[in-house]
Amino acid sequence: MLVYIAGSGAMGCRFGYQISKTDNEVILLDNWDAHIQAIKAEGLIITGDVEDKVKLPIMKPSQATKEADLIILFTKAMQLPQMLKDIQGIIGQETKVLCLLNGLGHEEVIRQYIAEHNILMGVTVWTAGLKGPGHAHLQGVGALNLQSIDPENKEAGHQVVDMLNQAKLFASYDENVLPNIWRKACVNGTMNSTCALLDCTIGELFASQDGVKMVEEIIHEFVTVGKAEGVELKEEEITKYVMDTSVKAAHHYPSMHQDLVQNHRLTEIDYLNGAVNSKGQKLGIDTPYCRLITQLIHAKENILNIK
Amino acid sequence: MLVYIAGSGAMGCRFGYQISKTDNEVILLDNWDAHIQAIKAEGLIITGDVEDKVKLPIMKPSQATKEADLIILFTKAMQLPQMLKDIQGIIGQETKVLCLLNGLGHEEVIRQYIAEHNILMGVTVWTAGLKGPGHAHLQGVGALNLQSIDPENKEAGHQVVDMLNQAKLFASYDENVLPNIWRKACVNGTMNSTCALLDCTIGELFASQDGVKMVEEIIHEFVTVGKAEGVELKEEEITKYVMDTSVKAAHHYPSMHQDLVQNHRLTEIDYLNGAVNSKGQKLGIDTPYCRLITQLIHAKENILNIK
Repeated sequence: MLVYIAGSGAMGCRFGYQISKTDNEVILLDNWDAHIQAIKAEGLIITGDVEDKVKLPIMKPSQATKEADLIILFTKAMQLPQMLKDIQGIIGQETKVLCLLNGLGHEEVIRQYIAEHNILMGVTVWTAGLKGPGHAHLQGVGALNLQSIDPENKEAGHQVVDMLNQAKLFASYDENVLPNIWRKACVNGTMNSTCALLDCTIGELFASQDGVKMVEEIIHEFVTVGKAEGVELKEEEITKYVMDTSVKAAHHYPSMHQDLVQNHRLTEIDYLNGAVNSKGQKLGIDTPYCRLITQLIHAKENILNIK
Repeated sequence: MLVYIAGSGAMGCRFGYQISKTDNEVILLDNWDAHIQAIKAEGLIITGDVEDKVKLPIMKPSQATKEADLIILFTKAMQLPQMLKDIQGIIGQETKVLCLLNGLGHEEVIRQYIAEHNILMGVTVWTAGLKGPGHAHLQGVGALNLQSIDPENKEAGHQVVDMLNQAKLFASYDENVLPNIWRKACVNGTMNSTCALLDCTIGELFASQDGVKMVEEIIHEFVTVGKAEGVELKEEEITKYVMDTSVKAAHHYPSMHQDLVQNHRLTEIDYLNGAVNSKGQKLGIDTPYCRLITQLIHAKENILNIK
């Protein structure tokens, strides 16, 4: 297979690196000049559980021309539409597109550019970090679930699962991936936005009764809206999952904290709490916690002059 | 009159200083040792619109023994019950007690210690700052409104108004002071808590649409709960007042920002947004914005290890 990684940040580099160790061909796409230059000059440097350096082709999305067998979408949420526009030249009749972005609402965007029978929606618990341009730091083990959104086209999904498992990415075909996508969005929507607002670790958030209470109300809004959309969600199970995650990740600052507080970058809030509020409004369900958190994060972006 | 200032922070010093220029007697009460020592040693130093230094008696609340004609309550909200316990020795049958604290819910606390016919509730737009122990910085002009909560006892309120006007404090007897108390609480509940959370000036908060939208929802909750309690509030008028204040005070960090962010002190959130949420719960009115803001502020107090 010819596999493009559309958005080669930390996670894109992990997937690109691991797939490059199989007999498939990988091309990284990204828009960060320093990252592209570093990988062209030195190769992609890997540290963490393994130390390695690999030559991998990398280019800007609009420069790619060879038709893809698979494109793995790994952009930041707000960069997705532009990425899909930029890669039109590599999308053929049978090009599969796997979305592994965080958050909600991406399927609707992808459908504007990709035929339904080629779309695969997925969710992963793999993690990765970037130490600098061209340098990915990879620790721990993860997994991913994916599903063809066209029920007639499961076969395409299974082929991608097999390829990802050659790359030791521990992929499974999931007959109902949406609840898993929502569950991860709910973890992000409870911890990322609040820790970014409060400038704290996940453990510090959950250390107070007030922190836990607001998390519970946010979960309730996610579950209520998700269920109204037909997604099978169990509030008790998701609450337990969030609480378990908060213990395991207690010492971490979530990614939105890194974006907003540490690096003064735009956040993905519109695809987490903001998405729940928008969906809620369409469904006639009030989600004041998600709405206020979205407003607070946007107000903070404005205060920090992030555009 | 013998007037005690119960809580001689910045505002208490302003009132104590101005009253000391009349033929009434003033005694300051406070619990901050360095402040007490400085005023005992050097007198109260005044800078700002005037430069002055005055000898004023100051002591801990529990050390006061001479029966008061008037006690002006100027503590932080959470210090009020302890102050009322500590000054029981100076409260006689006819001692009037004027509450000028920020926030909501103080009348219920005061009623536990003071007979109704002696209670005066008020609200002031005077401001003041403390430059350090024993040093108040006073700029600008203000006013205050007050009312006897016992309608049979207006006369007591008018006497206090006259005394305060001798001290050039521009006091008025108000036949309906509650809407003014709520209006000020609403200003504080919209700007103080949000600017403390977002670490920004009032102008920075109001500079974004998201900031303005959340302010509007908070005002709506204050007005809905206040009206349900029988307070005459007009949402449009209060919104205009809040917006006007945001322009005048654009460059200021509100007092809760000073407490939480600058000095890591407990905030008065339970007497602002928290009070609206508690009252709302009793009345069966949901106030999610006030509740989430209260939870966020308490979570932040916990993260900063403020006790």
